[in-house]
Amino acid sequence: MVPKLWDATIESHRQVVHQAILDVTAALVRAHGPAAVSMSQIAKDAGIGRATLYKYFPDVTAIVTAWQEQQIARHLDRLAAAGETQQDPAVRLTATLTAYASAIHAHHDDKLFALVHSNDHAGRAQDKLRTFLAGVIAEAAATGTVRTDAEPGHLADYCLFALAAAATMPDEAAVGKLVDIVHTGLRPG
Amino acid sequence: MVPKLWDATIESHRQVVHQAILDVTAALVRAHGPAAVSMSQIAKDAGIGRATLYKYFPDVTAIVTAWQEQQIARHLDRLAAAGETQQDPAVRLTATLTAYASAIHAHHDDKLFALVHSNDHAGRAQDKLRTFLAGVIAEAAATGTVRTDAEPGHLADYCLFALAAAATMPDEAAVGKLVDIVHTGLRPG
Repeated sequence: MVPKLWDATIESHRQVVHQAILDVTAALVRAHGPAAVSMSQIAKDAGIGRATLYKYFPDVTAIVTAWQEQQIARHLDRLAAAGETQQDPAVRLTATLTAYASAIHAHHDDKLFALVHSNDHAGRAQDKLRTFLAGVIAEAAATGTVRTDAEPGHLADYCLFALAAAATMPDEAAVGKLVDIVHTGLRPG
Repeated sequence: MVPKLWDATIESHRQVVHQAILDVTAALVRAHGPAAVSMSQIAKDAGIGRATLYKYFPDVTAIVTAWQEQQIARHLDRLAAAGETQQDPAVRLTATLTAYASAIHAHHDDKLFALVHSNDHAGRAQDKLRTFLAGVIAEAAATGTVRTDAEPGHLADYCLFALAAAATMPDEAAVGKLVDIVHTGLRPG
């Protein structure tokens, strides 16, 4: 029987290699675009053999997909973290909107960001994000600081579409103003 | 010397053929997608010879581009028309926002609409639209019904991004609510 400590070591090693593959691929795609990245180059940069790489992933698309899912999970964690220190639902909503707008503003000219936002994963990620934001909005609506004449899901759609304008804003000050404008739109009449 | 009446007849005929080519191509792209449409098919459906078609356009892409520019021009005309009967800048702004949101809601699942919004023409059209809307917003801001703490251009970006959510709304009632939410965001604090 293989001792548990050994299992843990193997699993830990696997995770390190897995993460190295994702990071190396992200760096290569960022530098050269997705079409120019090969499994050989990824294996070389990750410091593993090609045969080993194929034990982890069948192709570049699968690696990029895994990287996207990780980014999406981290992004949602960050959004949740931005709000969770706040007790007041209205303040939590503002913190969440600000974190999302800032992330869009910071990353919109990143090739990888564009890639994440251009396929089916973006659709699923957007669904998760929408559900999360609709929850924050519903809590704020329950305390009377957000209008209740529209469904929280529709208000979340409004926020996500409107905050995408952060990509066109010249600086953080304009992004802050955008968040204020979007937030004003949520206020009860 | 060719008489002017003859010139006018030729020009009129040219315009009729030109428009027929655009309409036939739009119908074919709508039915089969842009990749499946050939110059031969367009000539056949337009009732002209292939050689004649090539006197008007070098390829399918050029036809689709011409069609897109026409659609964009018409769309902007419609938006301007929606506002121009209104004397009050605030009412004109509401009419413009409503017309834009309704157009997005009505056409978002149209293949051709997606095509218009997926290339460089969309960028230029978006610029024109942004300039137009920024003007309507600036007029409303001058009368005190719109906030002046953000540039009209940034407020226009906010509106255009936010109103794109009309594509996700289930019905006209939800679209109307969206317009109200977006408009609320523009109000002075």
